[in-house]
Amino acid sequence: MVTDAQHACFEAGIKFGSLYHQFAGTPVSPDSAASLERAMVEAIENQPFCESVAVDIDADALAAAADDHGYVELTGRFMEVEMRIEYEGVVVRTEMTMTDGYPLMRPVAVE
Amino acid sequence: MVTDAQHACFEAGIKFGSLYHQFAGTPVSPDSAASLERAMVEAIENQPFCESVAVDIDADALAAAADDHGYVELTGRFMEVEMRIEYEGVVVRTEMTMTDGYPLMRPVAVE
Amino acid sequence: MVTDAQHACFEAGIKFGSLYHQFAGTPVSPDSAASLERAMVEAIENQPFCESVAVDIDADALAAAADDHGYVELTGRFMEVEMRIEYEGVVVRTEMTMTDGYPLMRPVAVE
Amino acid sequence: MVTDAQHACFEAGIKFGSLYHQFAGTPVSPDSAASLERAMVEAIENQPFCESVAVDIDADALAAAADDHGYVELTGRFMEVEMRIEYEGVVVRTEMTMTDGYPLMRPVAVE
Repeated sequence: MVTDAQHACFEAGIKFGSLYHQFAGTPVSPDSAASLERAMVEAIENQPFCESVAVDIDADALAAAADDHGYVELTGRFMEVEMRIEYEGVVVRTEMTMTDGYPLMRPVAVE
Repeated sequence: MVTDAQHACFEAGIKFGSLYHQFAGTPVSPDSAASLERAMVEAIENQPFCESVAVDIDADALAAAADDHGYVELTGRFMEVEMRIEYEGVVVRTEMTMTDGYPLMRPVAVE
Repeated sequence: MVTDAQHACFEAGIKFGSLYHQFAGTPVSPDSAASLERAMVEAIENQPFCESVAVDIDADALAAAADDHGYVELTGRFMEVEMRIEYEGVVVRTEMTMTDGYPLMRPVAVE
Repeated sequence: MVTDAQHACFEAGIKFGSLYHQFAGTPVSPDSAASLERAMVEAIENQPFCESVAVDIDADALAAAADDHGYVELTGRFMEVEMRIEYEGVVVRTEMTMTDGYPLMRPVAVE
């Protein structure tokens, strides 16, 4: 009742929801953005069927938004994410980008 | 390049990853399980394309695992979840159950 | 080297950090605010030395901030919190309120 | 009504609760432990009054506990933490260590 391609897309969605809700709210500054990017990548790549993750936190946007303490809490507006999931030979490429002011997660290709 | 059914499965996965990583780690006891279940359901049902969520936290398992303080941190071993996602007319039914000692999230049907 | 009153304040801080970082990022709407408030209260009251918690999520502020999907991710700007911690006979009262546009957690009284 | 030393201890508690509940549940393996340690340190050091943080994730314990997928979700049993908070000239040293099978956070010294 569920094809391998559909199951692969389900797995891709899990990784996005996990990444976002595990790390949203983390205190982050321009200086700490690189270590958070790396930890996010390596954490989510642990999950099954997750071939690769790329996270790009926008240090300029952090700097512009930072409060008097010099940091903000991470939300989708500060990052772009790309992932590649592979399940039973099906590859799903996905990304999260800001679209109309909202961090939109979407599947880009199923191959 | 991505069908509506595949996209619907991606959305279903997002909801599972979100639910799990938002609420894992929450202090929970047999007495507080009901309020946490309800909050999880209503929180995730806010997300786009999420028609319904059911969360069943196992109060007996909580009681057996609770430490001297009477509570545990929520993990997948203490709950079962069912969700119904609808995207562009495609309905995806999904669930999380304990399978071989591991909380397994899976799509059950795509209709 | 550490007095009971100091230790009580430490415990109070733990509860605030826990509450904030466990639940920040949760999808919340005016309709789901009440169940989230209740779950936050009951979850944190499980923790040792935590006598009482009150959480007030501002439904009007949620409605004003909600995106096209009708919800926002919970942050400190949407809620006020009061807690009462008791450790070895010392009572600490604490609160989180918006101060200068920033959610400020502070100890109010040590008795 | 609240001394600087008591307020310093409150701030120290906030950092511990934040660190724990922000990162608990993160997928972590022996290979990804180092990047997660570093991100945790740099994230919490962003918070006000937090002078230094040290996080030691026990890679051997991770390896022993890892499931078939090679990773676990981070909990207090896999890490030790030390922090130094400074508030209005008062220094608080704190730590989290496993005590009687439970990750115990405590203030070690107020100076």
